[in-house]
Amino acid sequence: MGRRIAGFPEQAVITEVGPRDGLQSEPVFVPTAQKIALIQSLLDAGLRRFEITSFVSPRAVPQMQDAAEVMAAFRQRRDAHLTALVPNTRGAAAAIEAGVDAMVLFASASESHNLKNVNRPRAESLRGFAEIAKLAEGTGVALQGAIATAFGCPFEGDVAVRAVVDQARAYRDLGMRFITLGDTTGMATPALVIEWLRALTTELPDVDFSLHFHNTRGVGLACAYAGLSQGARYFESSIGGLGGCPFVPRATGNVPTEDLAYLFHESGVATGTDPDLLIRAAQLAERIIGRELPGQIMKAGPRLRTAPMDSVRTANG
Amino acid sequence: MGRRIAGFPEQAVITEVGPRDGLQSEPVFVPTAQKIALIQSLLDAGLRRFEITSFVSPRAVPQMQDAAEVMAAFRQRRDAHLTALVPNTRGAAAAIEAGVDAMVLFASASESHNLKNVNRPRAESLRGFAEIAKLAEGTGVALQGAIATAFGCPFEGDVAVRAVVDQARAYRDLGMRFITLGDTTGMATPALVIEWLRALTTELPDVDFSLHFHNTRGVGLACAYAGLSQGARYFESSIGGLGGCPFVPRATGNVPTEDLAYLFHESGVATGTDPDLLIRAAQLAERIIGRELPGQIMKAGPRLRTAPMDSVRTANG
Repeated sequence: MGRRIAGFPEQAVITEVGPRDGLQSEPVFVPTAQKIALIQSLLDAGLRRFEITSFVSPRAVPQMQDAAEVMAAFRQRRDAHLTALVPNTRGAAAAIEAGVDAMVLFASASESHNLKNVNRPRAESLRGFAEIAKLAEGTGVALQGAIATAFGCPFEGDVAVRAVVDQARAYRDLGMRFITLGDTTGMATPALVIEWLRALTTELPDVDFSLHFHNTRGVGLACAYAGLSQGARYFESSIGGLGGCPFVPRATGNVPTEDLAYLFHESGVATGTDPDLLIRAAQLAERIIGRELPGQIMKAGPRLRTAPMDSVRTANG
Repeated sequence: MGRRIAGFPEQAVITEVGPRDGLQSEPVFVPTAQKIALIQSLLDAGLRRFEITSFVSPRAVPQMQDAAEVMAAFRQRRDAHLTALVPNTRGAAAAIEAGVDAMVLFASASESHNLKNVNRPRAESLRGFAEIAKLAEGTGVALQGAIATAFGCPFEGDVAVRAVVDQARAYRDLGMRFITLGDTTGMATPALVIEWLRALTTELPDVDFSLHFHNTRGVGLACAYAGLSQGARYFESSIGGLGGCPFVPRATGNVPTEDLAYLFHESGVATGTDPDLLIRAAQLAERIIGRELPGQIMKAGPRLRTAPMDSVRTANG
């Protein structure tokens, strides 16, 4: 562990979103057994919080057609907190049936993105949440919220912090106490993260906010660092950086879990994860997906793994 | 420009090292005219400080055999500060002759790396610096220092902050007032950056320290952000991220200049550079080198370049 940095929390919780967010846009179906093996490797590495799948229409997202089977493989793990993305009451019923710990309901902070993403205005999304909340009552299944385009919209540009606070308050009023700020297209910056967290934690002190950054513009880990500087304790990432940015072919997407955990450990923030086993899980993800992933630690190895002097050549400087 | 962040400087100076550090390990010789075109595009983008070449043995580093010609193309630019890496008195004489503004003298913070890199103990490197300092006297050419492996050594592991402070003091005593901390193999972390800068600026307040990070473990920009939080104002980077890590085949090396400038601008720190022209320079670097570079902004584009809604597909979240 690195030295503690003033103002940083002692520990942080990473929610692994690779099995859902990371895989959902993969065009080739990943066999259920491979998904299960990947999740198992992430559990082995010490992760305990997962966005494990989504209960969506198999026609809309064929990759997630095995949502119930994936959940069935892990629902007995009482030490793990398993959530699933749920777009409507039908998905919610299936998620409850499958035994998730919480359902993640999502809408965008910008109207254009919500229309594009789920084909309805934001107000209608919120009405849908209320129906799902009713369905969840008495089941013991919690509701979580996700705010997409929380730091900017690819169609509208900047998003006002006020819009995000209002949306989070609406979520809170529906019973959500855990809300993710999704940096859907990598528009978050450290300055925005600081401003957003100050506003949100001041106005909604009873909510835990989770930060989900994309590395699309290279500053994903700098944003996470800025989050830590404000005392944020919940973050989301994807093993190996699974999950590209759907908007730009060559751009990267999710922050890699193993790189995020490295930054945290080196900043004195405990995550309960094992660096070597995270690298192993990232390598498994790369094998499953059949192409190079953007994670850096999985390529460079741990910081203090020294090399024999005759193993390398150098060039001045 | 993004909002200022408490404690951050109003402006920072980026030294572009692509033409030297970025190109030196390229196995195929980059024609002099292309090097000149690249440097010109970087000047057009607003950069004014360059590590432009190195005066080394053409046998040892064939890529830098055109050092004098590259310098000749720009020595009349009085608005640009041009430095060159110099390993010995022979190189120093050539650099002075070529009209550099400053010579960069370098040694490693760890003995093993110095032996590996320049085939002599650190004490011998320092004696060589003294000879070069004598040579430079009265020429008007300044001396700068670079400390390689300043945040860790690939052979020895951790490097003590005391070793770095002592080395910087030795440099200062030879007349260097501008000293680069080189993160040669990407072992810097934000916590180390904070600790190093506190020690160095306390003990050597008459020296400007420049931070040169590698993104080998993904935290290059987080380290730069930590540097800004300590008031650091000098940074080094390479356009597009030119210049791999010589130690790990798939790992990335230098922090990309355009990504660093993006982080700075979005953190309210002026750099005098034009984001679009930096992207153009990065694209030129990619064409010259003939392969994809690790820079992110050059792929994703500026933060607020919005897309028409019918141009993309999305997937939930």
